[in-house]
Amino acid sequence: MEWINRDRVLIVGLGLIGGSYARALKRLGYYVMAIDTDPQAIAYALENGIVDEGATEVDSAMVGSADTAIFALYPRVLKEWIAQYQDLFKPGIFITDVTGVKGCVVYDVQDMLRPDIEFIAAHPMAGKETSGVQYSDARIFHDANYVVVPTSRNTPEAIEWCKNLGQVLGFARISVLSPEEHDEMIGFLSQLMHAIAVVLMACSDNEHLANYTGDSFRDLTRIARINDAMWSELFLLNKDALLHSMDVFESEFDRFRQLVEDGDKEGIRRAMQLSTERRAWFDK
Amino acid sequence: MEWINRDRVLIVGLGLIGGSYARALKRLGYYVMAIDTDPQAIAYALENGIVDEGATEVDSAMVGSADTAIFALYPRVLKEWIAQYQDLFKPGIFITDVTGVKGCVVYDVQDMLRPDIEFIAAHPMAGKETSGVQYSDARIFHDANYVVVPTSRNTPEAIEWCKNLGQVLGFARISVLSPEEHDEMIGFLSQLMHAIAVVLMACSDNEHLANYTGDSFRDLTRIARINDAMWSELFLLNKDALLHSMDVFESEFDRFRQLVEDGDKEGIRRAMQLSTERRAWFDK
Repeated sequence: MEWINRDRVLIVGLGLIGGSYARALKRLGYYVMAIDTDPQAIAYALENGIVDEGATEVDSAMVGSADTAIFALYPRVLKEWIAQYQDLFKPGIFITDVTGVKGCVVYDVQDMLRPDIEFIAAHPMAGKETSGVQYSDARIFHDANYVVVPTSRNTPEAIEWCKNLGQVLGFARISVLSPEEHDEMIGFLSQLMHAIAVVLMACSDNEHLANYTGDSFRDLTRIARINDAMWSELFLLNKDALLHSMDVFESEFDRFRQLVEDGDKEGIRRAMQLSTERRAWFDK
Repeated sequence: MEWINRDRVLIVGLGLIGGSYARALKRLGYYVMAIDTDPQAIAYALENGIVDEGATEVDSAMVGSADTAIFALYPRVLKEWIAQYQDLFKPGIFITDVTGVKGCVVYDVQDMLRPDIEFIAAHPMAGKETSGVQYSDARIFHDANYVVVPTSRNTPEAIEWCKNLGQVLGFARISVLSPEEHDEMIGFLSQLMHAIAVVLMACSDNEHLANYTGDSFRDLTRIARINDAMWSELFLLNKDALLHSMDVFESEFDRFRQLVEDGDKEGIRRAMQLSTERRAWFDK
């Protein structure tokens, strides 16, 4: 396998996801290096054996020694980093990312990249309501989905390498989607869910509701605890797909509301039977 | 305590919730009797030691021997049952229920009831996506909320008895609300959540989405697997409160959608900061 020759891994951005990649790869025997501007994140990772080497500034020797690099940065920062530091990389290395939106990232990065380096995008569909390397945990990948997002400029070797990375990290299902398919999917499955959770918390300022609630409200609002810096950026970078899924949802919501207003019990039951049937697709 | 003199408990309706009450009370030493029209439910409960006695038809001797009765029936069936069989009860007994809506039940039942029997309503905020006594489990009450819903016609003794019932069942928090407060609360915290989950499943017929989803979509749609007979009835019995919370939600949704359309990053971040702050109220 290509992968076994790439044993020095550089992780740029050591937060929850970068840290979880680091833990998983180090446990598998890779030599893991990390760069993060936050000294506390690097200190924590070194003290806890999450990485082998760490730096708070871009270290030419470290970047130059990497056989592969994984970017776990916000989309805009990722593009800036590549533009500024790509000359430090070894020829021939594969670069991947973990960014939650793809169309606005992948093409720009591939356009600006040196021809002897290949960028192959991926999206690990895993996370937590907390952020920071101190919450990182490789177990969040188990049972989770991993999507490789190639363009026509990617080689079969890089796509294979990236799928293999998902496998060694322990993901349960690995898929391949185009950037456009990915962003439409994520606008619905992830961003719309976060929008609904955020909106639900705007509906009431009654703190005492916690004394009455069952599990359903807790489930629908778990992700209302949200990293606003990251998600506001992701929302706006995927604005068209998000607005589209918001509109689809609102139109179905209006249709259901009308059934309730009309007292159409049979219509309500049919909608519930459909939802019960479709939800079974998502049983783990 | 009043409760210790009431050691023969009759449960009418032996589904998920009735069965969970039966398990909890039997374990505490009460003599538990159950009536359910489904022979399989009664047979299962007897075979598995969930009840001491069971009947598939209304048994005068059983009803007449009960020191207390708990109704776990759909709202309309509950009212019919009381109208038809209340003469069988001993004088002086306390009756309670587990119904998910109150305004349309409590006053009607209290109006029709013999003056020597007292009905005190309660709502155990616990459940599962499955139905039937075979899924019953007393552990669903732990960590859960229990709401006693008295009217001006209830005595302090019955209210105290009903709170005590919630305590012995093992609920974590016991509150008291009027029927109107209860129904408004439930329209938002429970019914709107179920409506959103059902609507989300109407948005896409793409079975492959399961290969890409993270946990957020699973969380928001867990309750899309829904007992359509029960929930369609509950929705329509609480129509005004449900429509009100749907409208509040939709108006907040529109406001958030506008922030996205306007590319108002600061506005989106403020909404996310508010949701993060408020969600902390609901941490267990």
